[in-house]
Amino acid sequence: MAKDFPTRKENYSQWYNDLVIKADLAETSAVRGCMVIKPYGYSIWEKIQATLDKKFKDTGHTNAYFPLFIPKSFFSREASHVKGFAKECAIVTHYRLKAAPDGKGVIVDEDAKLEEELIVRPTSETIIWDTYRNWIKSYRDLPILINQWANVVRWEMRTRLFLRTTEFLWQEGHTAHATKEEAIHEAETMLNVYADFAENWMAIPVLKGTKSPAERFAGAIETYAIEALMQDGKALQAGTSHFLGENFAKAFDVKFLNKENQLEYVWATSWGVSTRLMGALIMAHSDDNGLVLPPKLAPIQVAIVPVFKNEEQLNLISDKVILLKNALETRGISVKYDDRDTHKPGWKFSEYEFKGVPVRITIGPRDIEQGTVEVARRDTLEKETFQMTDIETKIVHLLDQIQANLFNKAFDFRENNTFRVDTWDEFKRVLDTTGGFILAHWDGTSETEEKIKEETKATIRIIPQNNQQETGKCIYSGKPSNQRVIFARSY
Amino acid sequence: MAKDFPTRKENYSQWYNDLVIKADLAETSAVRGCMVIKPYGYSIWEKIQATLDKKFKDTGHTNAYFPLFIPKSFFSREASHVKGFAKECAIVTHYRLKAAPDGKGVIVDEDAKLEEELIVRPTSETIIWDTYRNWIKSYRDLPILINQWANVVRWEMRTRLFLRTTEFLWQEGHTAHATKEEAIHEAETMLNVYADFAENWMAIPVLKGTKSPAERFAGAIETYAIEALMQDGKALQAGTSHFLGENFAKAFDVKFLNKENQLEYVWATSWGVSTRLMGALIMAHSDDNGLVLPPKLAPIQVAIVPVFKNEEQLNLISDKVILLKNALETRGISVKYDDRDTHKPGWKFSEYEFKGVPVRITIGPRDIEQGTVEVARRDTLEKETFQMTDIETKIVHLLDQIQANLFNKAFDFRENNTFRVDTWDEFKRVLDTTGGFILAHWDGTSETEEKIKEETKATIRIIPQNNQQETGKCIYSGKPSNQRVIFARSY
Repeated sequence: MAKDFPTRKENYSQWYNDLVIKADLAETSAVRGCMVIKPYGYSIWEKIQATLDKKFKDTGHTNAYFPLFIPKSFFSREASHVKGFAKECAIVTHYRLKAAPDGKGVIVDEDAKLEEELIVRPTSETIIWDTYRNWIKSYRDLPILINQWANVVRWEMRTRLFLRTTEFLWQEGHTAHATKEEAIHEAETMLNVYADFAENWMAIPVLKGTKSPAERFAGAIETYAIEALMQDGKALQAGTSHFLGENFAKAFDVKFLNKENQLEYVWATSWGVSTRLMGALIMAHSDDNGLVLPPKLAPIQVAIVPVFKNEEQLNLISDKVILLKNALETRGISVKYDDRDTHKPGWKFSEYEFKGVPVRITIGPRDIEQGTVEVARRDTLEKETFQMTDIETKIVHLLDQIQANLFNKAFDFRENNTFRVDTWDEFKRVLDTTGGFILAHWDGTSETEEKIKEETKATIRIIPQNNQQETGKCIYSGKPSNQRVIFARSY
Repeated sequence: MAKDFPTRKENYSQWYNDLVIKADLAETSAVRGCMVIKPYGYSIWEKIQATLDKKFKDTGHTNAYFPLFIPKSFFSREASHVKGFAKECAIVTHYRLKAAPDGKGVIVDEDAKLEEELIVRPTSETIIWDTYRNWIKSYRDLPILINQWANVVRWEMRTRLFLRTTEFLWQEGHTAHATKEEAIHEAETMLNVYADFAENWMAIPVLKGTKSPAERFAGAIETYAIEALMQDGKALQAGTSHFLGENFAKAFDVKFLNKENQLEYVWATSWGVSTRLMGALIMAHSDDNGLVLPPKLAPIQVAIVPVFKNEEQLNLISDKVILLKNALETRGISVKYDDRDTHKPGWKFSEYEFKGVPVRITIGPRDIEQGTVEVARRDTLEKETFQMTDIETKIVHLLDQIQANLFNKAFDFRENNTFRVDTWDEFKRVLDTTGGFILAHWDGTSETEEKIKEETKATIRIIPQNNQQETGKCIYSGKPSNQRVIFARSY
């Protein structure tokens, strides 16, 4: 087994953790719960960032930057917001260190205590709406469509690389609107942007819908979300978009003069995705041989490995490869030519396989003679001999095929692991065997939801968009229900 | 006067501050010393980031991400480092808030005290070298060439937007090498990257050289820097690159097996530029009419304003403008067509002038008849009528001219404000009248440097690269000196 790590069946959780570390994506740091994102992992995040950033700009948003710190008092202004975040935040209380009296190291200087403590942002609604108050006077100042790329901190007790870390990287959109309808439209638009990105770039099919009241963002009227299914049958929330109503405008007194010259509160949304997407990307496609990356987000799309016995052969091969590399790069493909003589071809094969490079091209002396190359695809592990003629078109086509294949595979997996369940026993059985998405009736109360969670650890992941209405009985309480919702255990 | 703000002569400091705020670049926030970077300001920073990021990658570096927090004990490991940063850092001591007993707001939960305090990174040498220890075993693991884009916090007592803020954005490169020579070469290479960027993108001429021991980075053996001269005769340090020797390798026990199979300490560099560059960019070129931006970093390079009396005229103009806009965009020029009917052309003219848009094109009905446009350049405020024929080539050429003109103007200013001074009276007179760079003899001691600073607030900005050697007498002590160094008051 490549890199000596467990199969998914043996130990899925260990498989994931080992994969993240051994594929050089990230590692834990000396700071509890904080990770180091290594260059290879970060280069994937850069692709995610660049793609999303363009989509945000194409939908009219601009970037800005707001402070890392939030005055403590800001948190108390919106009641449910403080409830949601107070228990897990990093608090700055002092601003100076001094030499320890015993001369060993440094201690906090008690004379440098802050009058008001500062919270390291777990999310930025409060500081941003405090700022928006000064920016918004009239309907002419609306809408405000701003996004921020930033680090945030939530003091999580149990952390896992990318999936749940104390500090993580994310983007947070914060928009202000003159009407409720416009704000809801914005929240839905951004959900669609996230879904499009998940499906067409990450090759991960997602369900779109809304959260139950218990699972809403702290301070939201409605939380829209996309949910993906991982290979172990657990759900992963891959992005959320919140309609915040007038909650933050009221908390921070943000009003505008409408066209009729009357003062009204401003309507808000916020939406975000984070480095958690890296976790989804890794888990959705990878296999027991290592990482599998969709071509559109792979930092290296094609690795070229020469097979040679002496420098003369290498030179002959390199002459061809340089032309090939240029031709591929002209088509926008990122190529790595690995002509190191310090590692054998076999070592390189398993390295690129393990790191999820979508296509590997091998060229040896016989290929030069015959005008061919060997092409191996990471998703199916199949190898094929290609004629060099028109090779760049073939590779472009192959990358498209791999992208589509990964999506289809993940889609089939989800289809095969989505169950309509009508009894409580069946509900528990599915959770304890295959896992997956469970479509079941729910009586609509938070009490029932809470009890289901207590007994099974499953939560309502989503109430699907345009959900089919049908009468039925709640899986747990037996009370009447008019629609099925999606349950699952989740990350 | 546009936007009602003081001239540079009246009050340079107020002029700068008003310009930053009124041109929508940044503003102060509710958090002491932290700024909000507004969309227009941030879009300039994005251009700076993108350009530098490409230069870093072209010189072999990759990006990664390290934790925001640094355990307090890490600071004590490198003696001069802790001395440099302990007095100005934000310290996290707790990780939970709880409801206040009086029911009003939240208070720090004393039960959630950290065992070891965490420092919000003022710079990341310590956490990164703690990480590198695990990455480096042998000479084969070297060099490590990593950069990080991040926010950092230094608890400054007196802050100014962009120039000195408690939180700021920056990049920090951290490299590890097998030999001293290679590390010094890296530090010098990155200094040249910064100088190239300052001169050819920001259009700001810079002096390259090294810092005196007193002005070195806390933990460095040698600090290389680029220094620019602002319009008020004060110097601004625009970027630094440090040769760190084996200091951090020793502090964090980072050794490698060399080719002879012997253990050696690793050699280090670090280098960074920050949102301070925004301050330099604003101050270097702007005038009493507002911001002046070099075309290569202007978010909008060309603004097109239609002059029309009715919709019919506007439609005729818009038909032409759409073609013009496409033609310019095809050449890589960013264009804004401002066809709003809510603002008059005169308002738009002063808006784009104030925001430093390099070129404004005006089109009215007569232009349509005659096949012309009016072109106004921001740097000289000159207007000219251009024939539409081949207009995109003319605009490309004009933008190049503006870029060159801004550099030349700043270069001439620096030449006219650099003085060779040989007496202490003259030294003080220059500082109190024109300001500028002063080339003067220095006896090479930190004592003299300190006294000059005490008496005049001037510091040694730089010992120029390849400095001409000449015998002379120290401007202050009269002791022998073998070279002139650059003194100035600075930001």
